[in-house]
Amino acid sequence: MRTAPLGIFDSGVGGLTVVRAVQTLLPAEDIIYLGDTARLPYGSKSPETIRQFAHEDIRFLLDRGVKAVVVACNTVTAHALPSLQEQYRIPIIGVIEPGVVAVLSDPGTQRVGIIATRGTVGSHAYQHALAQRRTGLIIHATPAPLLVPLVEENWLDHPSTHAALHTYLDPMVDRGIDTLLLGCTHYPLLVPMLRNFLPPGIRIVDPALTCAELVKADLTREELLNPAESGGKLEIHLTDLSEQFEDLSRLFLARSPGRISRVVL
Amino acid sequence: MRTAPLGIFDSGVGGLTVVRAVQTLLPAEDIIYLGDTARLPYGSKSPETIRQFAHEDIRFLLDRGVKAVVVACNTVTAHALPSLQEQYRIPIIGVIEPGVVAVLSDPGTQRVGIIATRGTVGSHAYQHALAQRRTGLIIHATPAPLLVPLVEENWLDHPSTHAALHTYLDPMVDRGIDTLLLGCTHYPLLVPMLRNFLPPGIRIVDPALTCAELVKADLTREELLNPAESGGKLEIHLTDLSEQFEDLSRLFLARSPGRISRVVL
Repeated sequence: MRTAPLGIFDSGVGGLTVVRAVQTLLPAEDIIYLGDTARLPYGSKSPETIRQFAHEDIRFLLDRGVKAVVVACNTVTAHALPSLQEQYRIPIIGVIEPGVVAVLSDPGTQRVGIIATRGTVGSHAYQHALAQRRTGLIIHATPAPLLVPLVEENWLDHPSTHAALHTYLDPMVDRGIDTLLLGCTHYPLLVPMLRNFLPPGIRIVDPALTCAELVKADLTREELLNPAESGGKLEIHLTDLSEQFEDLSRLFLARSPGRISRVVL
Repeated sequence: MRTAPLGIFDSGVGGLTVVRAVQTLLPAEDIIYLGDTARLPYGSKSPETIRQFAHEDIRFLLDRGVKAVVVACNTVTAHALPSLQEQYRIPIIGVIEPGVVAVLSDPGTQRVGIIATRGTVGSHAYQHALAQRRTGLIIHATPAPLLVPLVEENWLDHPSTHAALHTYLDPMVDRGIDTLLLGCTHYPLLVPMLRNFLPPGIRIVDPALTCAELVKADLTREELLNPAESGGKLEIHLTDLSEQFEDLSRLFLARSPGRISRVVL
């Protein structure tokens, strides 16, 4: 099982930011990535629909013999992780726990802003997990649904994105947040713009980095870590394929995605 | 068959702008509406995927005994209308032909701007149909993918939408368009903002209005028009249901949508 691939899935190609972090930390692991681009976005859909899609996604990966699965989508993690972990026996790691760990890694954190899809914010998964771990934390969570299409349009420094950030973030900044949690795997591409936009001193937390560390810890504990030192391969499967998705894959992965195949779930 | 319902479908709830136009012109017709909200948007997906979804959508309506179908989605019309018309025997009306008729209804039209989804623009369906009908017409078509999520966010007068309109429309205005065709059923909600944004004298064409007229002409010719004068009922079925979709339905229909049911295709 140690040399079996790791499965990673998302509603689209945003989860490739998590792939990138995992590849950097665990360069020996083979990765099979599934992006359900035919049915994206998940973020605005109902919990029932998201759970149904998530089970179909994970079965695709299990059929390919993966040893563990990373749910590289905050919306799926928020609504479906317990249901997935209950049904399947291999390790299944989401992105919310890593986000929470990363936020709390700084003991001085007092006021946390969270931006995410409507589905993730509405699930209260982040708010609940944070409130359970640290008493007295002040949390401001805002759905920021337009940031996904803006990132997908590659408008990473556009007045339209700037205006959207004002609407979403000004109220949080006014309330004095010290930390901004990026609760969607699309948002890391906005980090350069956010650094210019936010007042200095606000820490930006990208759960993808901590997620890769948790994956490493889980695989180590379960004795599933690939013993090689490098050479891991990446296979990308999308349920819908277009030039735009190929371009976006390059953007999120920050290098060529290789040959992408279209699959039916 | 005259009293059978009319089927109307779209990838989401934008097609309700067409429902509204049909109800106004044909108040006696019962309408069964299907919005494939679980898999929206279609506009950024590949032609194969769009065709597959369209066939599944229309079969849902045919199973409910509709006498004719309106494809209230430009992307589906652009990629799948001929394939649908070939396979099924009832009248199937798209939104592109009405858009073309409406543009050409003014004999003075010379320079036409088209905004639509990436799928619709990439299909060249509008450009081809216009060029075939009138020689010498100058056509500027631009994908405007962010306008759908901006409308769905109800940001109908927001700086972010304003900035997006600048990016999409400034080049067309600079080229002196006299007509702007709204090639997506979401865009009619932007008309008030567009009137302020565009220089005076540019005609805005919403295909939904002409579409309703073509539906009436088709039903009359096929002797399928409901003989009553009013009392038509509307049934809305969505493949995913959430508070957001209910709110959006109200927005697009400009009145209460009644009870919406969730269906599986």
